[in-house]
Amino acid sequence: MENFFSVADVDDLDQVVQEALSLKANPYSWRELGKNKTLGLVFLNPSLRTRLSTQKAAMSLGMDVMVINMDKEGWALETQDGVIMNGTTVEHVREAAAVMGEYCDILGLRSFPSLKDKVADYTEELFNKFVKFCGVPVVSLESATRHPLQSLTDLITITEHKKVARPKVVLAWAPHVKALPQAVPNSFSEWMCEAQKQGLVDFTVAHPTGYELKEEFTTGARIVSDLDDALAEADFVYVKNWSSYHDYGQVYPLEGDWLMTNKKLALTNDARVMHCLPVRRDLELSSEILDGPNSLVVKEAGNRVWAAQVVLKRILESLKK
Amino acid sequence: MENFFSVADVDDLDQVVQEALSLKANPYSWRELGKNKTLGLVFLNPSLRTRLSTQKAAMSLGMDVMVINMDKEGWALETQDGVIMNGTTVEHVREAAAVMGEYCDILGLRSFPSLKDKVADYTEELFNKFVKFCGVPVVSLESATRHPLQSLTDLITITEHKKVARPKVVLAWAPHVKALPQAVPNSFSEWMCEAQKQGLVDFTVAHPTGYELKEEFTTGARIVSDLDDALAEADFVYVKNWSSYHDYGQVYPLEGDWLMTNKKLALTNDARVMHCLPVRRDLELSSEILDGPNSLVVKEAGNRVWAAQVVLKRILESLKK
Amino acid sequence: MENFFSVADVDDLDQVVQEALSLKANPYSWRELGKNKTLGLVFLNPSLRTRLSTQKAAMSLGMDVMVINMDKEGWALETQDGVIMNGTTVEHVREAAAVMGEYCDILGLRSFPSLKDKVADYTEELFNKFVKFCGVPVVSLESATRHPLQSLTDLITITEHKKVARPKVVLAWAPHVKALPQAVPNSFSEWMCEAQKQGLVDFTVAHPTGYELKEEFTTGARIVSDLDDALAEADFVYVKNWSSYHDYGQVYPLEGDWLMTNKKLALTNDARVMHCLPVRRDLELSSEILDGPNSLVVKEAGNRVWAAQVVLKRILESLKK
Repeated sequence: MENFFSVADVDDLDQVVQEALSLKANPYSWRELGKNKTLGLVFLNPSLRTRLSTQKAAMSLGMDVMVINMDKEGWALETQDGVIMNGTTVEHVREAAAVMGEYCDILGLRSFPSLKDKVADYTEELFNKFVKFCGVPVVSLESATRHPLQSLTDLITITEHKKVARPKVVLAWAPHVKALPQAVPNSFSEWMCEAQKQGLVDFTVAHPTGYELKEEFTTGARIVSDLDDALAEADFVYVKNWSSYHDYGQVYPLEGDWLMTNKKLALTNDARVMHCLPVRRDLELSSEILDGPNSLVVKEAGNRVWAAQVVLKRILESLKK
Repeated sequence: MENFFSVADVDDLDQVVQEALSLKANPYSWRELGKNKTLGLVFLNPSLRTRLSTQKAAMSLGMDVMVINMDKEGWALETQDGVIMNGTTVEHVREAAAVMGEYCDILGLRSFPSLKDKVADYTEELFNKFVKFCGVPVVSLESATRHPLQSLTDLITITEHKKVARPKVVLAWAPHVKALPQAVPNSFSEWMCEAQKQGLVDFTVAHPTGYELKEEFTTGARIVSDLDDALAEADFVYVKNWSSYHDYGQVYPLEGDWLMTNKKLALTNDARVMHCLPVRRDLELSSEILDGPNSLVVKEAGNRVWAAQVVLKRILESLKK
Repeated sequence: MENFFSVADVDDLDQVVQEALSLKANPYSWRELGKNKTLGLVFLNPSLRTRLSTQKAAMSLGMDVMVINMDKEGWALETQDGVIMNGTTVEHVREAAAVMGEYCDILGLRSFPSLKDKVADYTEELFNKFVKFCGVPVVSLESATRHPLQSLTDLITITEHKKVARPKVVLAWAPHVKALPQAVPNSFSEWMCEAQKQGLVDFTVAHPTGYELKEEFTTGARIVSDLDDALAEADFVYVKNWSSYHDYGQVYPLEGDWLMTNKKLALTNDARVMHCLPVRRDLELSSEILDGPNSLVVKEAGNRVWAAQVVLKRILESLKK
């Protein structure tokens, strides 16, 4: 593995999941692999789970870790070429990325979308420039359009908890107070569509009209606007809010009942409930579910470590070649 | 030891002090004990001494350390149950604590009191919820009502520097420009009262009328409002400001002379002077004392490492069982 | 080596450069030297390259590292003596430095100048007080008047890339939008003047009238105000902005063409171009140079690791004595 940005960076999904689960069983068996290797974790936006789980995974592999909170400790980066830098940006991504590549063997980068400039966001301008100029492998810690460590985590969690060979997985839109990126649902859909292709799951997306994701992320999925219909016979329900892709970054007045509750859960096949966290209790997902036996959200967050660890392990292995 | 929150988490005070001093003599003799164990240090408020000394102690025990500045890098936590989270809090402590527990073998938590809601502060609402939901041992890095790593440090420092078997220790209120929590004086009193019970010290508290601490913390102490009286024959003077407990968080116009000076020190038995730091020079404690031979404040701060290390060592040992 | 503050802390410049280059060839051959030693990196101002390169260097030497962002995580320090601390400063440098010295075997300190109080800045008041009170060796991570890790890096980079025994090196002033300190040009001049004395380079400084550096930093250098004249036959051009020393912290209306471009580079002996970064593209230095074959800026930044590593190695060696 050279970079980790999307599902396209993994071939056999079940294989990578099994490798992650073997790391979960023996987390410290690869302490020598990362020796004398440095991971730099670069954040242009806040992070809790991603930073901790990736840092932990790297330390368990024997790596040294440096965290770089550009949003707090650093300064504003210029991303445009051909600009005379006489304004507020202090350093160009060309230099900043290249320099961080000098100090680290692998870099992780988190950069949220603007939710204003659809083209810049969906061409992954910042992420791609960073990859181009840093000169070392880059792991996405969530980019404008994807959150692949989360999606790999989700597949690991589904694999661990499934009771049938090919469980029915539903991505269910939920309400929120803020306009959120599409990165998590895009990425989850992309991974579930590929998992469906590889015979691992059966995948449905449910959202109100107007919240259609960009088509390339949902190819092969069943897409419905009737949540109750989607939930029938579901084995896993993945709850998540997102803002509109087509009417970019917009949020519409809420119509219908999209809060996930035990009453809705009764329509499913005793489904396990997932969420990437942080979750707004009783707005996106009811407390009764979160505090009940069907919630996987904490175990899911715990699995972030093994997703990060298998990705770092694979990149370290290709560095050795 | 499972958690470290108050003096009740230690049985024999002299034993824990002696163990700390043996770590001071051989800091790196337990590097194997913490191997493949991760300490997460969670700060809801700023920290200098506590973070550095605890991080250093953990590294000396071979642990990996992750620092989590929730107040700067993170987001606002919801602590109330039954709230629809459609406001400014981003994540509930139920999820946040549980997730951090997934990534760490031991957690440290710093959370100051509001100084507005006495009941919430003195029931240690946040700290207790964090312990309840995180699922791993928790070390207090100062909570609303106590600062036990500081108090253990203080007992270590007194033990190192005492010239008689049962020295006279005085906690002396001092002026300040801000309304400060009662956590440090509560905790110091609690530890000294227990130390008095175990025959290790003789303990007096001196403060202006109105600054009485909550009774449970001072049981057995001699309490006076005449500083000069308290200082007579003192072997150790512990200088500290705090705001009113009864008239919660209030500060009264200063009456009398409570700044500790060499002139006041002349009343004592050549007492050593202590302070938890940071100290306001010439407001709480005179420069002449801080720069003179009787000040222990820097050595005291240095001893924070051994308090943290003995606590982490004992928790690591109980994890192994 | 006890402290690292200026060129005076090194005797034989070529020897320290060769030692740095041997560390570059074998970065991990001294992992045992720093075992059980802790480096504290204290920042009163932001840092990217300095923090990462010094942290990396220390980890490669086997040290534990603690980063202390006093400007973000800490609090305002009092530096004046004889002040009643009833204002906004929370802790005196006397205590803060001493306490950090208790937790660390070596400290690094970054503190920028005020650019307002020339005397305080040029007597290095803060840095010197920190050294005086912390009680352990201190490495400058850039002080009010010098940036010695950068200057040592620059000499390493010149040594690596020189084609003649005694290359011509030009420090060329460049425009900027902000008033910047003189620390980098002071320090570069100081090191190059000493390198000139030791027969390693031939050194010229070019700047508009009014930007004269303090004389002690440029003793022995050729100083001109005609950039084209300076560039003739140059082997290395070091581009950097700074504000006025004599009219302290002032910036004058720009006269003449001081942006470094390929056209200007044509006057040189195919000179390599250096800059300490961050650089304002097309204001200080043209994009065509930065993206072209003559730029050394990224390799130069990479060399920061070996400058830090040789300095830490030498200090660790003197600690062992």
